[in-house]
Amino acid sequence: MNVTVGGRTRHYRTVAFDAGRNAVLLIEQRLLPHQFDIVATRDFRQTARAIREMMVRGAGAIGATAAYGLAQGARAFRGKSPEKFSRHLDAVYQTLLAARPTAVDPRNAMDGVRNAIRAGQTVEERQALALAAAEEFANHDVTHCQAIGRHGAPLIRDGMRILTHCNAGWLAFVDLGTATAPLYAAQEQGRRFHVFCDETRPRSQGATLTAWELAQQKIPHEIIADSAAGHLMQRGEIDLVIVGSDRTLGRTGDVTNKIGTYTKAVLAERHNIPFYVAIPLSTIDWKLSSGRDIPIEERDQSEVLGAWGLVSNPKSEIRNAKSSACAYVRVANPGSGARNPGFDVTPPELITGIITPEGIFKPGELWRRRGRLGYAE
Amino acid sequence: MNVTVGGRTRHYRTVAFDAGRNAVLLIEQRLLPHQFDIVATRDFRQTARAIREMMVRGAGAIGATAAYGLAQGARAFRGKSPEKFSRHLDAVYQTLLAARPTAVDPRNAMDGVRNAIRAGQTVEERQALALAAAEEFANHDVTHCQAIGRHGAPLIRDGMRILTHCNAGWLAFVDLGTATAPLYAAQEQGRRFHVFCDETRPRSQGATLTAWELAQQKIPHEIIADSAAGHLMQRGEIDLVIVGSDRTLGRTGDVTNKIGTYTKAVLAERHNIPFYVAIPLSTIDWKLSSGRDIPIEERDQSEVLGAWGLVSNPKSEIRNAKSSACAYVRVANPGSGARNPGFDVTPPELITGIITPEGIFKPGELWRRRGRLGYAE
Repeated sequence: MNVTVGGRTRHYRTVAFDAGRNAVLLIEQRLLPHQFDIVATRDFRQTARAIREMMVRGAGAIGATAAYGLAQGARAFRGKSPEKFSRHLDAVYQTLLAARPTAVDPRNAMDGVRNAIRAGQTVEERQALALAAAEEFANHDVTHCQAIGRHGAPLIRDGMRILTHCNAGWLAFVDLGTATAPLYAAQEQGRRFHVFCDETRPRSQGATLTAWELAQQKIPHEIIADSAAGHLMQRGEIDLVIVGSDRTLGRTGDVTNKIGTYTKAVLAERHNIPFYVAIPLSTIDWKLSSGRDIPIEERDQSEVLGAWGLVSNPKSEIRNAKSSACAYVRVANPGSGARNPGFDVTPPELITGIITPEGIFKPGELWRRRGRLGYAE
Repeated sequence: MNVTVGGRTRHYRTVAFDAGRNAVLLIEQRLLPHQFDIVATRDFRQTARAIREMMVRGAGAIGATAAYGLAQGARAFRGKSPEKFSRHLDAVYQTLLAARPTAVDPRNAMDGVRNAIRAGQTVEERQALALAAAEEFANHDVTHCQAIGRHGAPLIRDGMRILTHCNAGWLAFVDLGTATAPLYAAQEQGRRFHVFCDETRPRSQGATLTAWELAQQKIPHEIIADSAAGHLMQRGEIDLVIVGSDRTLGRTGDVTNKIGTYTKAVLAERHNIPFYVAIPLSTIDWKLSSGRDIPIEERDQSEVLGAWGLVSNPKSEIRNAKSSACAYVRVANPGSGARNPGFDVTPPELITGIITPEGIFKPGELWRRRGRLGYAE
């Protein structure tokens, strides 16, 4: 998508590869929305660290980063022995995998690269194939998001007011995003609409990342407290809800997404507002057969007990180094603890439709369409 | 309620009067939860400033503060002329009223003091009557909250997990609070329970004030993001919801309260969880006949776009003066705006019961019981 820095607008992918420098190019997401920087990781260890330390986050984005990281590691190998190359590649794979062990996309992406390499005989051929496969993974991510945008755009009519939660935007993928892809496609088709971004406490990805994306794309939007959507729906000010998903059960249509998604679905149902979930195929879980079986990560209390932001006092010493552009403030009572479930599960009966690269389906249709949706026995 | 400072536990009212110094004693609420301070205002102008600058906030608390401020002004009068005393008192009244012109409690409280003064002949008698009337107003506030506690306590059974939103606690009244009064009464009766405090963005009164109160009273509690309650209800971890109200329509039972209250009521209904509202009689509006007619204050964007808290970096220069114990951090994308409705309206069909000093009523019963509930033609 486009980013304007110092008055100049340029197209960026969230993750890209510079073959000349053998570097992975990443948007430093921890500095957003306060600063826009592209970081070039110069070897696979730096790339792994970027994933681990969440310089890059989001399903598609970390998948592509891991794929590029594997290619980067492959291309750094000096030697002719295919056996030594293989052992080297295994070490690279393990290092990148360990950076976010519970995520499914890095493993899938790297497995694709490893499979592609097999067609090569020499080390040099395999290095070239690794990069080609990583590029293919990244391009696939983009075309999938484009397809989501194509299918979802007709839902958005002129003048609509659309609510989204958290960030399932282009920063979470290689480009375009999932929940945001229909917005960007509708904008391209000339339609005008307004987006309400849920702040999305405790990590505030709506107020920071989604709002930044929409501002860069010049889509009119306003941030609201997570508690405000119910009131706006009651007063008839929201026409459509689109969110992303971290894991969707292919057998049932249950959707796991950032904490607070379920609440928005309950409110949308009460107010007869269509509630859509946009997903890439890689996040469909074909194994679990009940939403209750989805484990919900309990995250660190500090996220709920405070907030990260730019200190407005210009005298503050927190200003220089990039890593301390933001400060953490303790908001809550110092003697109190917090519960911090990171995700919740929205049951299929609250979901109007699931927007996939293959079209829009009712949650209950996914299993019947599993052939088209990438199900593997 | 009790506050422990430096290992010593003492009982405090939110607002009190020191007759010897002719001073109003206020808990400096803007420093909570990070610092506990009692401020003595030495004349009625300082008292008015304390109300205006929100050193004290909450319906009952600002009512009592205004009543004490009027008595303070009356007692500062030097002279024998009842006419000059009257003119002086009018000026004091107007100054205190102007501190929070839209609030209903300061006016009601001060009108009570003015009426009581009429029984006196001399300036001295009137000064004594003013203080007695102010003390009576404050004591009434306490006995009303005690009655709310007495009626509400039986709702709380051993082992329950109770959700509350925002702060309708003792800091908003002279003592005990409304939504919290049943908790404190149940605790006194020896029952054990757990409270989830909604953070209550954007001003975070749940994470700061309610959590501080509960910690001082040693009631087990945890703060949650406003988005998390739906998930906890879904997993069966919340048994009861109790909130306060800024304005309840006597004719319909619609409840206005802090933004996000409506959402909690919708979720509670879906999960068959009882949803109670605790109110003092002074907040019943007997005029409006539809929840849609309640004006909803749109507050400053900056509340949504950032947060107030203690900067954790010890090197920060923000540390010395009391007024800068906290810093504001900008969380959101700098190019984005926000919508910030301060309140929402919960319709009667979502409310299990309204806990008043006169007993617990169904929302639809208020009008029928208006005689008992302080309705005046």
